[in-house]
Amino acid sequence: MGFQLKNIVSFHIGGRNVSLSGRQKELRRLAQGGTPREIDPNGDYQFGQMYVQGYLQENPRHQLPVMLWHGGGMTGVNWETTPDGRPGWLHHFLGAGYDVYICDAVERGRSGWNAFPDIYADAPLFRTKNEAWDMFRLGPKDGYHTDPALRTSHPEMLFPLDSFDQFACQWVPRWADHELMTMSAYGALLERTGPAIVIGHSQGGGFALRAALEFPHLVAATVALEPSGAPNREWLAGKSHPHLIMWGDQIQSHAIWAGYRKTVESHVAQLRGLKTTVDVIDLPAEGIRGNTHFLMMDSNAEALANRVIAWLGSAAL
Amino acid sequence: MGFQLKNIVSFHIGGRNVSLSGRQKELRRLAQGGTPREIDPNGDYQFGQMYVQGYLQENPRHQLPVMLWHGGGMTGVNWETTPDGRPGWLHHFLGAGYDVYICDAVERGRSGWNAFPDIYADAPLFRTKNEAWDMFRLGPKDGYHTDPALRTSHPEMLFPLDSFDQFACQWVPRWADHELMTMSAYGALLERTGPAIVIGHSQGGGFALRAALEFPHLVAATVALEPSGAPNREWLAGKSHPHLIMWGDQIQSHAIWAGYRKTVESHVAQLRGLKTTVDVIDLPAEGIRGNTHFLMMDSNAEALANRVIAWLGSAAL
Repeated sequence: MGFQLKNIVSFHIGGRNVSLSGRQKELRRLAQGGTPREIDPNGDYQFGQMYVQGYLQENPRHQLPVMLWHGGGMTGVNWETTPDGRPGWLHHFLGAGYDVYICDAVERGRSGWNAFPDIYADAPLFRTKNEAWDMFRLGPKDGYHTDPALRTSHPEMLFPLDSFDQFACQWVPRWADHELMTMSAYGALLERTGPAIVIGHSQGGGFALRAALEFPHLVAATVALEPSGAPNREWLAGKSHPHLIMWGDQIQSHAIWAGYRKTVESHVAQLRGLKTTVDVIDLPAEGIRGNTHFLMMDSNAEALANRVIAWLGSAAL
Repeated sequence: MGFQLKNIVSFHIGGRNVSLSGRQKELRRLAQGGTPREIDPNGDYQFGQMYVQGYLQENPRHQLPVMLWHGGGMTGVNWETTPDGRPGWLHHFLGAGYDVYICDAVERGRSGWNAFPDIYADAPLFRTKNEAWDMFRLGPKDGYHTDPALRTSHPEMLFPLDSFDQFACQWVPRWADHELMTMSAYGALLERTGPAIVIGHSQGGGFALRAALEFPHLVAATVALEPSGAPNREWLAGKSHPHLIMWGDQIQSHAIWAGYRKTVESHVAQLRGLKTTVDVIDLPAEGIRGNTHFLMMDSNAEALANRVIAWLGSAAL
């Protein structure tokens, strides 16, 4: 392996100033061996910015960069490594000759977050391992147990189950109803980089589907891995660029996921009605069983990345 | 420039499971276009893990890797770029032939954080731009103004003042009194990588000084940039490896910083009393005026990195 990089860049994009006033001061000790000092919460804060890291190759083999947008309650780490330490999709797309940008969506990871209810309206949500076991479709609703030896998974499971607790290290709190703030930062990123291939997973897949319509001049191809939602009709306007959507296993047996998929399929029908090419890879329909919601972490993650890379090569970009 | 990397690795280290019970369920809408669903906060969460990204060179020119540990309310981004987009110390140490590890300390950035008061005892602290202007020693206590044109800075200022709001994009909330949790993750990291050169800034400088004593077999050299604290006497035990400490400008005129420095200087005296080599670079004493608390972001950041690189070369590692 090995990567000849021209540069590794990182920056924050988007965001604005917000001011707080009328809040009480407090005494807090902050430094090792230090004494308590007064903390005044009144003043200015940055709000709504997004962290981006770009891996720019010495000799990229493609003109368009790839953007990897993670899902809800996650960060860009999802793309850097699998929980059992295999290379992530970052490495597969670098290996395929693409420049790659990885984001931490607004309010997650290195993007930082703001006080609630002072600046954010609501408290965040923290995902339990119990819920993730079900929602990520690793096993039945009550299949999680604190003791790994007592966990029940779906048959033919392709997720590295022994690394599920390691995977939980990647999770971060999330807020509901922050989609507009996040989309606005993704738009600012596309404005900065220029046209790109956008690959999104879960909530990020929904953002990728929306970016395709909201920023049509800046997105050359859209890949949505298990999108958990789709944009409103308002964004639909004529033919768009090629789309690829990929689904794992155990969706129809999961009421919430069956519902999310129905929403996405109705969006796909509308795109196709407007002559947009939408290819769908339904893995279990091909006889590939056991993929979870985290296609980029399952044991066949590299093969799935290569499916996307081949599709990008065949799509007329 | 350009970097021939053998691999870019990332992982989470440390951490354990914690369980919550007896909390109320709530209804929340999470997916774009989705319907509200029940969220159950009861169950298992990961706690205390730390995110690490490693840049491993095809042909490192040194056996020991460099670790860059950021300060309080920050993330590893501090080392990746300056707010005005110049290369960070990451690039300077890669350019000098070192493998480099950058961490997001526990509870910050990609390390994630836990619910309070359920798991963390206290609420976090959010740093205002107003406080940072003073505490980072960019200007007088009341020198900050929302309008950049109305801000008052210290004379001969070397921080890229036009990018102060961009710098604020890098800040994240922090908790007081989490030092032990953080040190334990840093220790686990050193156990994993083996002996390393530890470079810490501010709170991270205090952690670096403590790691030197708590994990003496795993730290080959300690560089503390403007450490905001020092470990307790309990950790002092005989001669240690070489230390370098670097200070910027405007410290004696700032009561809190003068106090922090006093704590560190008493630690230095104790180290020297035990025959440990401690070199101190006091920039204003050398006639170099205008450095702030963020030495790795000031306009002479590259020259200061080269000072550290030269010191590492001269220290018998």
